[in-house]
Amino acid sequence: MNDWCELVQGGVTAPKGFRAGTARCGIRQAAGDDVGLLVGPAGGSAAAVFTTNRVVAAPVTWSRATMARGAVCAAVVNAGNANACTGERGLRDVEATAAAAAEALGLGPENLLVASTGIIGRFLPVEKLLAGVGEAARGLDDSLEAGDAFARAIMTTDTVPKQVALRCDLGEGSVTLGGTTKGAGMIAPGMATTLTFLTTDARIERPVLLEMLRRAIEVTYNRISIDNHMSTNDTAVCLASGLAEAPAIAAGSEGAVRFEAALTELCGRLARMIVADGEGATRLVTIEVVGAPSEESAVRVGRAIADSPLCKCALHSGDPNWGRFVSAAGFACAELEEAKTSLHIGGKLAYAAGGPADTPLPDLEAAMAGDEVTLRLDLGLGAGEATVWTCDLSREYVTINADYHT
Amino acid sequence: MNDWCELVQGGVTAPKGFRAGTARCGIRQAAGDDVGLLVGPAGGSAAAVFTTNRVVAAPVTWSRATMARGAVCAAVVNAGNANACTGERGLRDVEATAAAAAEALGLGPENLLVASTGIIGRFLPVEKLLAGVGEAARGLDDSLEAGDAFARAIMTTDTVPKQVALRCDLGEGSVTLGGTTKGAGMIAPGMATTLTFLTTDARIERPVLLEMLRRAIEVTYNRISIDNHMSTNDTAVCLASGLAEAPAIAAGSEGAVRFEAALTELCGRLARMIVADGEGATRLVTIEVVGAPSEESAVRVGRAIADSPLCKCALHSGDPNWGRFVSAAGFACAELEEAKTSLHIGGKLAYAAGGPADTPLPDLEAAMAGDEVTLRLDLGLGAGEATVWTCDLSREYVTINADYHT
Repeated sequence: MNDWCELVQGGVTAPKGFRAGTARCGIRQAAGDDVGLLVGPAGGSAAAVFTTNRVVAAPVTWSRATMARGAVCAAVVNAGNANACTGERGLRDVEATAAAAAEALGLGPENLLVASTGIIGRFLPVEKLLAGVGEAARGLDDSLEAGDAFARAIMTTDTVPKQVALRCDLGEGSVTLGGTTKGAGMIAPGMATTLTFLTTDARIERPVLLEMLRRAIEVTYNRISIDNHMSTNDTAVCLASGLAEAPAIAAGSEGAVRFEAALTELCGRLARMIVADGEGATRLVTIEVVGAPSEESAVRVGRAIADSPLCKCALHSGDPNWGRFVSAAGFACAELEEAKTSLHIGGKLAYAAGGPADTPLPDLEAAMAGDEVTLRLDLGLGAGEATVWTCDLSREYVTINADYHT
Repeated sequence: MNDWCELVQGGVTAPKGFRAGTARCGIRQAAGDDVGLLVGPAGGSAAAVFTTNRVVAAPVTWSRATMARGAVCAAVVNAGNANACTGERGLRDVEATAAAAAEALGLGPENLLVASTGIIGRFLPVEKLLAGVGEAARGLDDSLEAGDAFARAIMTTDTVPKQVALRCDLGEGSVTLGGTTKGAGMIAPGMATTLTFLTTDARIERPVLLEMLRRAIEVTYNRISIDNHMSTNDTAVCLASGLAEAPAIAAGSEGAVRFEAALTELCGRLARMIVADGEGATRLVTIEVVGAPSEESAVRVGRAIADSPLCKCALHSGDPNWGRFVSAAGFACAELEEAKTSLHIGGKLAYAAGGPADTPLPDLEAAMAGDEVTLRLDLGLGAGEATVWTCDLSREYVTINADYHT
């Protein structure tokens, strides 16, 4: 982390100007609140990115449209039902949700982003949800506890709430950034759905914020994989209140560089929390690919390792079976040359010059034994590099995703 | 199967002119013979296709070169060690193997294809292997039992030997085609390595045979997936003895059409045997994609479903959680339109017009309960279609691939 950034307490309510409220409406089977509201001031700005899946949940269709209109300052979210593959009725249900939230907040529906996570192909129990939205609005609060409750209300198979807040010295004044995210899969099974809510009290124009958000997501969320199955509901939104005592962040300024670094740090920490809490996962795995012909090629190689069940099983048992990692690179990179390729596991050389290195097996085993494992693959071809994060594949993953019946 | 084809007994020794021999040399931990020789007459023809992985096993490097020289009539194969990622020493070891087999058979090394399957990154115990090659040569025999022993000698984590033979009426005379294959993964873990040995007594020129083999493999072996991890050792070879009492097969003739259909049938049956015996698998899954913009697009959609661990877990438990299948199509096909897409499970409509169909849940559950499950996804966009085969993902798969330590 850069030295102009520091971790602070809390999540989405850590920056100035944000309130959160939650309620239990009973859509999610697991106990606890399952609907949340996040509200910023009307004068701020907002940016969001969404799934690229062609099968798109109704709330994503809604939110793309409201984000395009440029007046979003609040979000309403439910866990337990994704409202995806629900056709026209799904769209009517999301309209009703936004209208109810808007009325409770004294806003227009066009000010609302809507997000859902949970099972696909079931209609929303709308009356339950609308009752929950009203209750959540009555409990809105700007405390850190309210942010924590919001982080819990969006959980599905997550085993821990996931939130981070950072304070960033822009050079001329400081701003705070907060965020919460969910993801791991669902007991009432759906996708490894990811929802991400980011807040900041920085003053920043929407186009500048959107570009920064896109770049930050590209090198963080878009480089994690638990099971390589893209959700229909993925949504990451950043709301900026503009209430910090700091000048507006102008594109190209030193402050912009620092703010984007802080935003990327925030997204990276949240994204890695998702991987570490992956369904059935016991290890967080960092795959550094360097020396690739291009950054795109480096990402492809990293993902091939991250998504191979054979690699993930070896990572589960801590088996330094490096042939699996090298052969995954071999089918992902058309330019690979064995003689130029090398692989380090936790800093220990496993493979070089087309054959096994002479590192003793116990050293390689030790390098794979911890809660965190780092693979570093050097293709020796160019300047392209990328880091990808994944987790191991365990019997528990199969249990979570197979044994529940629809 | 076309009515000019019929199943017959045996495998690689069913066609006229082929002998097989096996021996135990102790490279594979599991009991039984682990080296095999397959020998046809010098006057025949041969064609082969190999892995496209850029990390290439030494025997594949050797065999590509000998196949290009055009005089291959015999194959030597070992199980238990892939001789991959073994650098210069690996190449010297495969040369020694080919030389020993050639001497034992009274042939030149250029007549030999060499194939290996097993763990990656270990040097071959060459002396053991050479002793086994000599013993296998002394036991060469053209009986169906010898073909069966060959099928067993190439097994790794396979739970059953896999062979098929077909008799094909060309119109003017009949020919026999035989084949054996292996694949499922390895207890001494390596890749889901596939080796395929096909024989026929048809008279057919090498370029014609090679084109037919490429097309047959493309729609069979290249459309199965157990774990989406391409091997460094994949090899499929077809040896033709020319000894059947039937005219030579000329490109473009009716006989050629029938022979290619028989060859494709043979490869399809062998490929599906691999999937049905996939590591930890309990179900053979057929994914038919129709109405795609192109065949390529149909393959991509089929593979996205076949390779998604979420889909494979639902297939394991027989859970008709169709949102997983539809959403996988949504990230694999950029042109997908929800309103035009429909999904049948075992002939029962699960999803249509952007939402759930009204088929009762017990009917969908019944459609997923058997040893074989068929998904049929219609994208409603064009004439592209493809069929992809896969298996389910079980805890046993993780056990097989995680619990063994290198």
